[in-house]
Amino acid sequence: MSDKSLNRVAIIGGTHGAELTGAYLVKKFERFPHLVKRSSFETVTLLANPRAFKAGTRYIHKDLNRSFSLEDLNNTNLSTYEDLRAKEIYGLLVNNEKSKVDFIIDLHSTTANMGLTVILGKLWKEPLILNLAAYLTDVNSLVKLFNWSNTQNNSFLRSICPRNIAIEVGSIAHGTLNPWYFEKTEKLILTILDFLELYNQKPVKPTTSQITVFKGKDILDYPRNPNGELEAMIHPNLIAKDYKALNPGDPLFQSFQLSENQTITYQGSSTVFPTFIGEASYQEKGMAMCLADKQEVDLRENL
Amino acid sequence: MSDKSLNRVAIIGGTHGAELTGAYLVKKFERFPHLVKRSSFETVTLLANPRAFKAGTRYIHKDLNRSFSLEDLNNTNLSTYEDLRAKEIYGLLVNNEKSKVDFIIDLHSTTANMGLTVILGKLWKEPLILNLAAYLTDVNSLVKLFNWSNTQNNSFLRSICPRNIAIEVGSIAHGTLNPWYFEKTEKLILTILDFLELYNQKPVKPTTSQITVFKGKDILDYPRNPNGELEAMIHPNLIAKDYKALNPGDPLFQSFQLSENQTITYQGSSTVFPTFIGEASYQEKGMAMCLADKQEVDLRENL
Repeated sequence: MSDKSLNRVAIIGGTHGAELTGAYLVKKFERFPHLVKRSSFETVTLLANPRAFKAGTRYIHKDLNRSFSLEDLNNTNLSTYEDLRAKEIYGLLVNNEKSKVDFIIDLHSTTANMGLTVILGKLWKEPLILNLAAYLTDVNSLVKLFNWSNTQNNSFLRSICPRNIAIEVGSIAHGTLNPWYFEKTEKLILTILDFLELYNQKPVKPTTSQITVFKGKDILDYPRNPNGELEAMIHPNLIAKDYKALNPGDPLFQSFQLSENQTITYQGSSTVFPTFIGEASYQEKGMAMCLADKQEVDLRENL
Repeated sequence: MSDKSLNRVAIIGGTHGAELTGAYLVKKFERFPHLVKRSSFETVTLLANPRAFKAGTRYIHKDLNRSFSLEDLNNTNLSTYEDLRAKEIYGLLVNNEKSKVDFIIDLHSTTANMGLTVILGKLWKEPLILNLAAYLTDVNSLVKLFNWSNTQNNSFLRSICPRNIAIEVGSIAHGTLNPWYFEKTEKLILTILDFLELYNQKPVKPTTSQITVFKGKDILDYPRNPNGELEAMIHPNLIAKDYKALNPGDPLFQSFQLSENQTITYQGSSTVFPTFIGEASYQEKGMAMCLADKQEVDLRENL
């Protein structure tokens, strides 16, 4: 195997304790390791936030998936449960600032109608990742590709390994399991492992020449009052329309600060593609949705 | 007005802080009181659990909607936030064990596919309630009627007033607002107020002779391991099928304790009608769903 081959792959679930799909898939894989065993690499699994999972909440004290910046990991004054758990996970998966795993798959779910989204990390233009993305969309046309290169990415759990993806499935209410998505997510993970197995054995050529990547670029918050409470909700025309075009002048929010529900329209200058529309746990982060560009990526130019 | 007329009606939201539909409807009604003002009675509004609403969680320390038994209200040793808030609300709405309001509408939402459910209280066979139920199903065929006369009812917030209903809408992920259900719930509340206004003015005759009431009778839990973790999820055939017939032998759960997802079937002896299927916040209460009987109630016999 070349230097670039993968020796160890981590499947991580329950980074957010109320996102049960990933947590219970990790538990299933721990019980039936043959499902994720492949001949050319070792597969390790991790339930990232067991206390939050037990409590049925996203986190105990703070968002574990925003606790992995090197600055925070090195800050000995940070000592909430998630700060300590982040340091512990970092110790498990990283040695001398070098990841002990070669690929991380981090499992998430969302109340937004994101379908089967694969979130590509910072190195998304690396041949391995681009080829994987092409392979997954080829095998399952429901798969959407999303990428967001913002600074916050450095505090994600999965950022401790340069090659990483997140799987984001929904709409699923936090604290619940949707059997349809459970099965689809399981199959997607196994397909990813199959691809990585192929990749380890020989160069994998994409069967498609172009992929569509939604590139997150902006955050849009709800209209709020000075107490931070919402003054509007997602407009009926926009709810559950993740990945659909939103044009200037299209309905965005419906205000309930007026006795007649009033429409607030999108004031941007060009068409965007909203994602994470109305995600419950992003309300506290000041986010009603993410606005993305739709980008066609020619694989021949990038590989 | 007769002794039986209603002088004061309470609309209560945010009894569970993450059920945003009710909380934001109460806020809307507080801002625009003319919406809920009627000539023959006073309408009061209450955001029941403001701290949980602010935190975006069901509760801070314990379920407020299980904190209203007289025993607990009189127990001075109980002093969590919700215990104290329950005593405070009781002080606001009750005087010498007599309710200061004549009717309570308590607003809830659920991750289960319960549509627009009106939950009838202990006195559901009282003419006022039966007539209201008939009126609501007549005006809106989406309205479902549910009743569950169990002992736990005495600890519900709304139980402090003998005449009470809860509105339970879904599926809505906790922590989110669904604009479609927001509007439907608002209309339903206004229709209830219109009915109560009519009722205060003259005897209201039902326009229908029969109503269908789903009577909760049993709780069914998930298969669990000794740690309390789920060993199965709601079966794909059953998810979102609230109020549909479940027959002996029908698929109930799909196990993930086996590498091949295995079906667990319903072993009861007769057809039942599940409700609250997979409701997120009932997992901690040991409940995967409620099993109900479907009962046709002849209004001519009961009025």
